[in-house]
Amino acid sequence: MSGKSTKIRNENTVWHEPTIYRNNRESLNEHRSVIMWFTGLSGAGKSTLAHALEDYLHNKGIRTFVLDGDNIRHGLCKDLGFSDADRTENIRRIGEVSKILIDAGVLTMTAFISPFRKDRRLVRELVADGDFIEIYCKASLETCENRDVKGLYKKARAGQIQEFTGISSPYEEPERPELIIDTANNTVETCVDQVVRYLETNKYI
Amino acid sequence: MSGKSTKIRNENTVWHEPTIYRNNRESLNEHRSVIMWFTGLSGAGKSTLAHALEDYLHNKGIRTFVLDGDNIRHGLCKDLGFSDADRTENIRRIGEVSKILIDAGVLTMTAFISPFRKDRRLVRELVADGDFIEIYCKASLETCENRDVKGLYKKARAGQIQEFTGISSPYEEPERPELIIDTANNTVETCVDQVVRYLETNKYI
Repeated sequence: MSGKSTKIRNENTVWHEPTIYRNNRESLNEHRSVIMWFTGLSGAGKSTLAHALEDYLHNKGIRTFVLDGDNIRHGLCKDLGFSDADRTENIRRIGEVSKILIDAGVLTMTAFISPFRKDRRLVRELVADGDFIEIYCKASLETCENRDVKGLYKKARAGQIQEFTGISSPYEEPERPELIIDTANNTVETCVDQVVRYLETNKYI
Repeated sequence: MSGKSTKIRNENTVWHEPTIYRNNRESLNEHRSVIMWFTGLSGAGKSTLAHALEDYLHNKGIRTFVLDGDNIRHGLCKDLGFSDADRTENIRRIGEVSKILIDAGVLTMTAFISPFRKDRRLVRELVADGDFIEIYCKASLETCENRDVKGLYKKARAGQIQEFTGISSPYEEPERPELIIDTANNTVETCVDQVVRYLETNKYI
């Protein structure tokens, strides 16, 4: 097989140059791609907001994907637990997959507590400026604990769940997130509108 | 924030139901998604074929992505080496990412030696029937070693690269791949045509 140009980068892997890049995929899709990183306490509404936003964006013809516990913890990260080290590795892998997805032209949303600043910063630094939108789903521990739809906080208080963020493991609030969404006092629709306005104002969509 | 329906699957994760699924994304894209898994010896032409195929498909309006050493070994799998165990974990993660990409509606190509049958079978079993096309890029060790564009085989023979597939680590040929491409005796264009015919015949594109 006659070869394309190749180059070598380490001892035992030869790389072959692609001809199709992210900008070609964005052109085909007629929209940009970006990582929208939702962070916040359990019960703050990250997944709910991400899926509602995906519904809105998809119906506008935008290629979207939501990474969440369902497709990560049972798959790519099923070897990981909930210790600090495993949470860090979990977030690192989610960051790398998000980077692949935006390279593939997909507007990518992630819905994980991601409690540690250093882990979120690591993901931000994986990609170019403007490719990472940190969205803090802000609801107080009291609000989240009062909701406690599935009784997780109650179990954490009873010591039946270890290292539960906000109870027995810290949550470090974002210092300079691109967006703060008050998910305690607004409907899903209002929260979606706020994110959509940000995307429009900053020419993502 | 008023909630959507949720369900619980383990002790400390609550899942929120999405409304947008792979079939919605495929409808938006107006094409199917699938994993095309290229396997074969180093130098057999996996990456070259995958990138040439991507060029063809992208220009037909198909959303594509190629996973290869460049975007995996320096990112998601940068913590892994080349031992048998690390190769297995490498392929497992690539399989999981491929699954995410086809869920995102992307026709996904992977270009890794992936020398072990059990690892390739594990990926095949991750997805539904028809979602995994195993493509054996067939070129003899002699052919690949004679090409040796970057001198990797020479280094492996000299013991400067450890566990090099075909020399000091086994390559297990696919037993029932969907496609066998003779990359030793054909041009890239002919190989691309053969894969495209398979995709058309089987209604992937």
